[in-house]
Amino acid sequence: MHFLPAEIIKAKRNGESLSYEDINEFILGYARGHIPDYQMSALLMAIFFKGMTTEETLALTKAMLHSGEVVDFSTVPGFKVDKHSTGGVGDKTSLILGPIVAAAGVPVPMISGRGLGHTGGTLDKLESIPGFNTQKSLPEFIELVRKHLICFIGQTKEICPADKKIYALRDVTATVESLPLICASIMSKKLAEGIDGLVLDVKYGSGAFMKTSAQAEELALNLMSIARGYGKKVTSLLTNMDQPLGRYAGNSLEVEECVAIMKNEKFIGPGGYDLYEDTRELSLQLSAHMLLLAGVGRDEKESYKMASDILTSGKAMAKFEELCQIHGGNLAALPKPKHKVDVTTEHEGHVHGFHTESIGVAGIIIHAGRAQTTGIIAPTAGIEFHVKVGDAVKPGDRIFTLHGDDKDLLQSAVPLLKSAINISLPKITKPSLILKILK
Amino acid sequence: MHFLPAEIIKAKRNGESLSYEDINEFILGYARGHIPDYQMSALLMAIFFKGMTTEETLALTKAMLHSGEVVDFSTVPGFKVDKHSTGGVGDKTSLILGPIVAAAGVPVPMISGRGLGHTGGTLDKLESIPGFNTQKSLPEFIELVRKHLICFIGQTKEICPADKKIYALRDVTATVESLPLICASIMSKKLAEGIDGLVLDVKYGSGAFMKTSAQAEELALNLMSIARGYGKKVTSLLTNMDQPLGRYAGNSLEVEECVAIMKNEKFIGPGGYDLYEDTRELSLQLSAHMLLLAGVGRDEKESYKMASDILTSGKAMAKFEELCQIHGGNLAALPKPKHKVDVTTEHEGHVHGFHTESIGVAGIIIHAGRAQTTGIIAPTAGIEFHVKVGDAVKPGDRIFTLHGDDKDLLQSAVPLLKSAINISLPKITKPSLILKILK
Repeated sequence: MHFLPAEIIKAKRNGESLSYEDINEFILGYARGHIPDYQMSALLMAIFFKGMTTEETLALTKAMLHSGEVVDFSTVPGFKVDKHSTGGVGDKTSLILGPIVAAAGVPVPMISGRGLGHTGGTLDKLESIPGFNTQKSLPEFIELVRKHLICFIGQTKEICPADKKIYALRDVTATVESLPLICASIMSKKLAEGIDGLVLDVKYGSGAFMKTSAQAEELALNLMSIARGYGKKVTSLLTNMDQPLGRYAGNSLEVEECVAIMKNEKFIGPGGYDLYEDTRELSLQLSAHMLLLAGVGRDEKESYKMASDILTSGKAMAKFEELCQIHGGNLAALPKPKHKVDVTTEHEGHVHGFHTESIGVAGIIIHAGRAQTTGIIAPTAGIEFHVKVGDAVKPGDRIFTLHGDDKDLLQSAVPLLKSAINISLPKITKPSLILKILK
Repeated sequence: MHFLPAEIIKAKRNGESLSYEDINEFILGYARGHIPDYQMSALLMAIFFKGMTTEETLALTKAMLHSGEVVDFSTVPGFKVDKHSTGGVGDKTSLILGPIVAAAGVPVPMISGRGLGHTGGTLDKLESIPGFNTQKSLPEFIELVRKHLICFIGQTKEICPADKKIYALRDVTATVESLPLICASIMSKKLAEGIDGLVLDVKYGSGAFMKTSAQAEELALNLMSIARGYGKKVTSLLTNMDQPLGRYAGNSLEVEECVAIMKNEKFIGPGGYDLYEDTRELSLQLSAHMLLLAGVGRDEKESYKMASDILTSGKAMAKFEELCQIHGGNLAALPKPKHKVDVTTEHEGHVHGFHTESIGVAGIIIHAGRAQTTGIIAPTAGIEFHVKVGDAVKPGDRIFTLHGDDKDLLQSAVPLLKSAINISLPKITKPSLILKILK
């Protein structure tokens, strides 16, 4: 029968399952410009309401994947592994775990994204290092991974062009928040990397895309089933994003934090504990699971110990310096913000929580992040976190410090940040960073 | 706050009610080309799933209405009344009731549509009369109604341009079947006619848009509440479309049937009763309710008697001839089909029902109707119905006769027609034509 886009939309609208052929023709037709935006957006909204079965999500992923190239790593020996995070505030673990895993001899080909909305992007962080260039061709990328076991690039025009076009459309048609669409978008890009294994950092909480751990687990299970459908090894960590991760959110500031951690430094905050601790711990846990998938280490404990040894021995830092060299980045020239503005509290009690998404929005206000893909990033702009959930505070205590080069802009984000913390009298236990590991 | 189309889509997607301002800005922005098709189609699909309140539907109607002009009939004295049918197979009552009501001295300004899908359109029927021209400017239309009390035109570019653009988009994005969208589309066009009263013929059954009488009643009540929101008098008839109406479906054949009825002719079929009866009766009932709204006749019975007298006295036929003259149509030259192909049954029993939509599709196959707005109509092509629900049939009896100029095309529709009737042994009572009258 002749392929009619309107019939496909109607079938999905009526809750029917679409065949692989229908999905493939629709996606490729759209990528090639034969199906107009208005039919794709109607289908996306129908998918938003009616969902997709596991088979349909697999078919969608496959169609998006095959709209472009799959990186061919057959010339690079070893088990290629990557990590994907669903995004959070201050989430900078790629900069630490990449060097750890590569230093352990496991190739880490990383195709990363830019920040959008309240979450940051790995490429923006790396590009705050003067000269750091992530624009490489796919053959260069393959060669660099072969030689150095690590390389970071952005999504090239060869990688999942259908996803790129669909993502831009979802953004302006209120069809972002759909599980099958999210899964297919994430997995098509990761599968295009030509990896053998993937560790997923699926975040939940006030600063994450998924607000509850149940939603995060559903997302993780869906992503894992797609990865397994492609014969990939996969592990998911469900991690807490009810507060920002680590000491800083902001591009050059996050690089500074990662370098400090890889140099075995600590930063003891007013609470009397190391404010780098959660970034370090999550990076090590993720590294351990990446190593385990690659067959390095017999069990979680041994893989964790290996990751930890690589970090404390300075080998991760050496690999990060090598990485900067590959990409032309001058780490010694990392810019420092010119101004800072403290945000204090008037309340007494304990920190019960953060409106982490508001902190991300404050980051957009000071140009640490961007609201639209065309937004410009100020590399040194960022927010420093002095306290975490469970800490005791009293009036006048510093909660946040805004950093950046434009003092007026920093000042304008103060009211939003002031309201981005919940302080209440009762004591509260600190939440655990990692809720669950799904294998 | 700045108006963001994506935020409006998201609000509707989340089931929120939209304000009049939001709906108006979205619709007018779309009509003027400031909002792209892909955002409108996403909103349409969200409305499909989440519906609209009465207030929202009124706001949508108002926005579509005011995207264009409202015909100003202040120069035409009297109560202007029209009829709208939700569409069926063989539904030709406008050609009879228009002349009856006008002959009674009540102005009938009719802005009609063309056939699309399995239902026919009044304009296509009239244009099967050689020379009949429905393209008139709005000032000409007003003047002709003033002078002759009746005129038929199509939707001009001044009338509800937003509806025209949205309807074309709904057709290709599987968003036609949405109650608020249907209501706003129908009512914005009818309100633009500048009428004082409206009679709705809301059909249900296998050949109607609404398959059940409950759905038809819901649609009727929604349409009536919009009409009343605009201070218009309105009556709805819920009528049965489980079988085609009258003797013929097809453009010149339906004109022939209407002319025969207005000339007081009968056509006794094999069942021993007049096959024009249901067309005549429905036309008279609708005419009666139009007259009643206009204050002509004290009650239904009296208005019906007046309509019936106008029909039998030949005054309706005289008005129809006057109408043809206004539009330049030469009724004497009405073309006749060159070929016919009978469709017989192999079964014995009673007619239990028709797949009336399949009959409409058979009409598309022989070019009596069109699947797309660009389809070409063969004026003489059509289907003749020899039996109705409740009739007794035996093997070899003619059920349908296909008429037209292309014998091969007629032949190709035979299998579909053969399967478009249910014959079963038990006796069955004839269904009533009019189920309910809503005032």
